[in-house]
Amino acid sequence: MARVSQEHLDARRRQILEGAARCFTANGFHATSMQEVLREVDLSAGAVYRYFGGKDELIGAIAADVLDGVRGAFDRAAATRPLPPPDVLLGEVMRELLESGGLVGDDMRTSSRLIVQVWSETLRNEELAEVLRDGFRKLRAVWIPLIETYQETGLMRADVPAPDVARTMIATVQGFMAQQALFGEMPIEVLQNGLRGLMSMGEREPSGVPAVNAPVKLPS
Amino acid sequence: MARVSQEHLDARRRQILEGAARCFTANGFHATSMQEVLREVDLSAGAVYRYFGGKDELIGAIAADVLDGVRGAFDRAAATRPLPPPDVLLGEVMRELLESGGLVGDDMRTSSRLIVQVWSETLRNEELAEVLRDGFRKLRAVWIPLIETYQETGLMRADVPAPDVARTMIATVQGFMAQQALFGEMPIEVLQNGLRGLMSMGEREPSGVPAVNAPVKLPS
Repeated sequence: MARVSQEHLDARRRQILEGAARCFTANGFHATSMQEVLREVDLSAGAVYRYFGGKDELIGAIAADVLDGVRGAFDRAAATRPLPPPDVLLGEVMRELLESGGLVGDDMRTSSRLIVQVWSETLRNEELAEVLRDGFRKLRAVWIPLIETYQETGLMRADVPAPDVARTMIATVQGFMAQQALFGEMPIEVLQNGLRGLMSMGEREPSGVPAVNAPVKLPS
Repeated sequence: MARVSQEHLDARRRQILEGAARCFTANGFHATSMQEVLREVDLSAGAVYRYFGGKDELIGAIAADVLDGVRGAFDRAAATRPLPPPDVLLGEVMRELLESGGLVGDDMRTSSRLIVQVWSETLRNEELAEVLRDGFRKLRAVWIPLIETYQETGLMRADVPAPDVARTMIATVQGFMAQQALFGEMPIEVLQNGLRGLMSMGEREPSGVPAVNAPVKLPS
């Protein structure tokens, strides 16, 4: 028997993951059978089980790949210098997500559907939940210093906790993904325009008093 | 046989939905069997099937209830006068969501988990998807005039499309829900602080040039 190259093994593994991702995106993790995955990738059960012990392993591998892609997009955007303002920065995250392609190519609708499936799966899979929590910790560790930079350079008020702003910025991307998955047609510009609108509102007193009749202060 | 009051029927229906919601929250829609639901609500199959034809009907009823709760929270917050700024307004949405309780009581973590399950289910259920799209349309119809009010009163720059800001504000709530479901422990104040940070950044030129060395303009 001829020796099989690592490259061949990797390509085959990728082929299986991509086919499975297509099935899962269309019908969810739990309503998809291994038989459907085999049909989609056009391989025998023996060939597929050589790489993945079963559906749970396949789901775990796909989820790990999706989460890697998301975190990579955040990390690459965060490395942009000079540091752009939040609307540009989050637009970069989205563009990186699109361009990285991942298992489902560069179709944002499809990859956002896969992300929502992974979230849902995470709720009942403690192993996956730990992977997600760990990724979120690392993500915040990268993003908090960016917020502190905004604050130190006077671009953002300094009296709000930087970790809260980091979580909120990450939340806007997650909400964008949810809308993309559920409703489609959410161009990156929508979120960027929305952020620009919010960012233009100026500083308010921390008391929660609306600034309607108050002069808008410059960030100090 | 004694006549059964409408009140009794409604209460029994509610009891079944609440029990099923507990099961689904813990284990997802698809990994939960009808047997587990029957055990949880402590009723016979006959009693339960009198109200719901099967698991799909139960999922549909729960999803509809969850979506009603979310939209009600947005609608009630939007009616606050005088109109509060976005950080206070979105805090109100969250508080309304918590206080409305819904099927799983006032536990934000649990209800956010149910919301993520509903999103995931929506991706493979066209009927549910239409309910969600319709709710989203109505939600935007209520929120866009609020943004226009910010813009007309000079609180927000007027050169960004109001529908984009509405979608972005809704996205922050969705992202908050996702983080609540996935990581827990996201107090409402986190999102409010984060929004205050973003809102303090001031207006930038629409060209996308960072404002790092530019004077921050007052909203006109």
